[in-house]
Amino acid sequence: MKTYIECLACLVRQAIDIANANLDEEKREGFMRFVLKGLSTFDYRNSPPMMARQMYGRIRELSGIDDPYKDIKKHYNDKALQMYRGLKDTVNKSPDPFETALRLAIAGNIIDFGAGGGHDISLDDTVKHALRDPFAIDFSHDLRSELEGASTVLYIGDNAGEVVFDRIFIEEIGPEKVTFVTRDIPIINDVTIEDATYVGMDKVCKVVSSGSTAPGTPLEICSEDFKDMFLSSDIVISKGQGNFETLSSASREIFFVLMVKCPVISREIGAEVGSLVVLKKPSPTVDADNDKPIEESIDVHPNVME
Amino acid sequence: MKTYIECLACLVRQAIDIANANLDEEKREGFMRFVLKGLSTFDYRNSPPMMARQMYGRIRELSGIDDPYKDIKKHYNDKALQMYRGLKDTVNKSPDPFETALRLAIAGNIIDFGAGGGHDISLDDTVKHALRDPFAIDFSHDLRSELEGASTVLYIGDNAGEVVFDRIFIEEIGPEKVTFVTRDIPIINDVTIEDATYVGMDKVCKVVSSGSTAPGTPLEICSEDFKDMFLSSDIVISKGQGNFETLSSASREIFFVLMVKCPVISREIGAEVGSLVVLKKPSPTVDADNDKPIEESIDVHPNVME
Repeated sequence: MKTYIECLACLVRQAIDIANANLDEEKREGFMRFVLKGLSTFDYRNSPPMMARQMYGRIRELSGIDDPYKDIKKHYNDKALQMYRGLKDTVNKSPDPFETALRLAIAGNIIDFGAGGGHDISLDDTVKHALRDPFAIDFSHDLRSELEGASTVLYIGDNAGEVVFDRIFIEEIGPEKVTFVTRDIPIINDVTIEDATYVGMDKVCKVVSSGSTAPGTPLEICSEDFKDMFLSSDIVISKGQGNFETLSSASREIFFVLMVKCPVISREIGAEVGSLVVLKKPSPTVDADNDKPIEESIDVHPNVME
Repeated sequence: MKTYIECLACLVRQAIDIANANLDEEKREGFMRFVLKGLSTFDYRNSPPMMARQMYGRIRELSGIDDPYKDIKKHYNDKALQMYRGLKDTVNKSPDPFETALRLAIAGNIIDFGAGGGHDISLDDTVKHALRDPFAIDFSHDLRSELEGASTVLYIGDNAGEVVFDRIFIEEIGPEKVTFVTRDIPIINDVTIEDATYVGMDKVCKVVSSGSTAPGTPLEICSEDFKDMFLSSDIVISKGQGNFETLSSASREIFFVLMVKCPVISREIGAEVGSLVVLKKPSPTVDADNDKPIEESIDVHPNVME
């Protein structure tokens, strides 16, 4: 997904929040000037997470703090772990454990700080909402039937805390065929290998990093190993907005599982803010002349903010 | 008032709104890049309206539209004029017509598009709130007693629509000693001489332009005639946030009459968002050595966005 002008206000708001939270007052102005200058020259064909990546990279440099959200991530990992047993019971007692676990995975997606969430998230309310409301876009039947015939599933995680909800869904899918994917470094509250390990995901399925240093999965900065897995897995499940923003035009079929959290994504996907989405993006049309998917070119965009 | 980093998000949001409302899609990105670049180099010792001035100036150039808010201003002028008779009755029947008219003048200040208001303002609810709630900061007794002894009052207006509420208060002050001040050109929904004339202010008191092309009254861009009046009038009443932002450190006593509409102003003034304020800013301390007010230097800042 490209960067829309509406995304600029959101990125500036995020920059102010992280400046206030992580920098001394005298460094904040310089950081904001860096961000504004970067935003003024950024190639808007890139997705917003490619811009966020540079903002958060600069915050790490200026603050000397590698993981500003460490405590918050632990808080939500712990909170979700405390809910694990109860949520498992809900799944096991439900008439359709697959759908219930899928709905819980979407509920977990509410734990997101980049999109303007925050500390006062009501996970309990979100779980109730996710268990009850209809899907705004519903390819859950395709997902279920394709999963039955699949032997390799790449599951691209999104946030800490949320990873516990992902684990419940993965346990329902059949974890032996799943590889769970994390970011490569701490960025916002996105899930890292450390978070996945903390909640025991590594005991359930294989856990790997995508190599991404952005709050999403821009293929142009991911590792070769990840890209091979991405192209060769039978099924790719992508959780959350950041992964949608960075993978929405990738050259293969993807299931996007998320809660819509901002007006831009709402317009892009065609579902209201707050709605539950299981979207199936088909593989792009193949060009008959050279047998390559039309959208396969993955440009490496220069880092204009540096 | 300086530009705080929080103001940057608000200015970017305003830029997106005016770009979407006034520019064809292909011009919006270029405008946003202009704004972001300007914000990245702006001297933050300037007030936010000095930045807004350049954004709106560029919108006029790119769109060819001199007054993008013309219809909205007329709508609110008409709406307020329809309320005029009823509001006058409220004032006349109240036990304290001066205070009631002052409260109505503050209520009118809700009509503000820059600060994120918009079309769905409930003027009736705001009037009820303004007539009932205590002032968060209350120098209304000073204002009343100083007005009694004054022979020249400079009343710096803020927005169209609001100007009708100002008229009611000015009629209570004694309009023969009042000069009502407008912006020099249309900017956002700020009051112009045309608006003041449309609602009959010119039949009540003298109406002049400050010479300001910003949504506020930055003295460094105002006319010499206005600055003379500003310094020589017995009393200056300043309506609204934009005037507060640009005059908060001016070198004379000013009464700031406004409704607090954003967190930055809230923090600066020390009153909650939504609260009613009648603030008396004293004249800055005089330096005994040269008998000049310490803050009298009014720098002309270069227009860094052009």
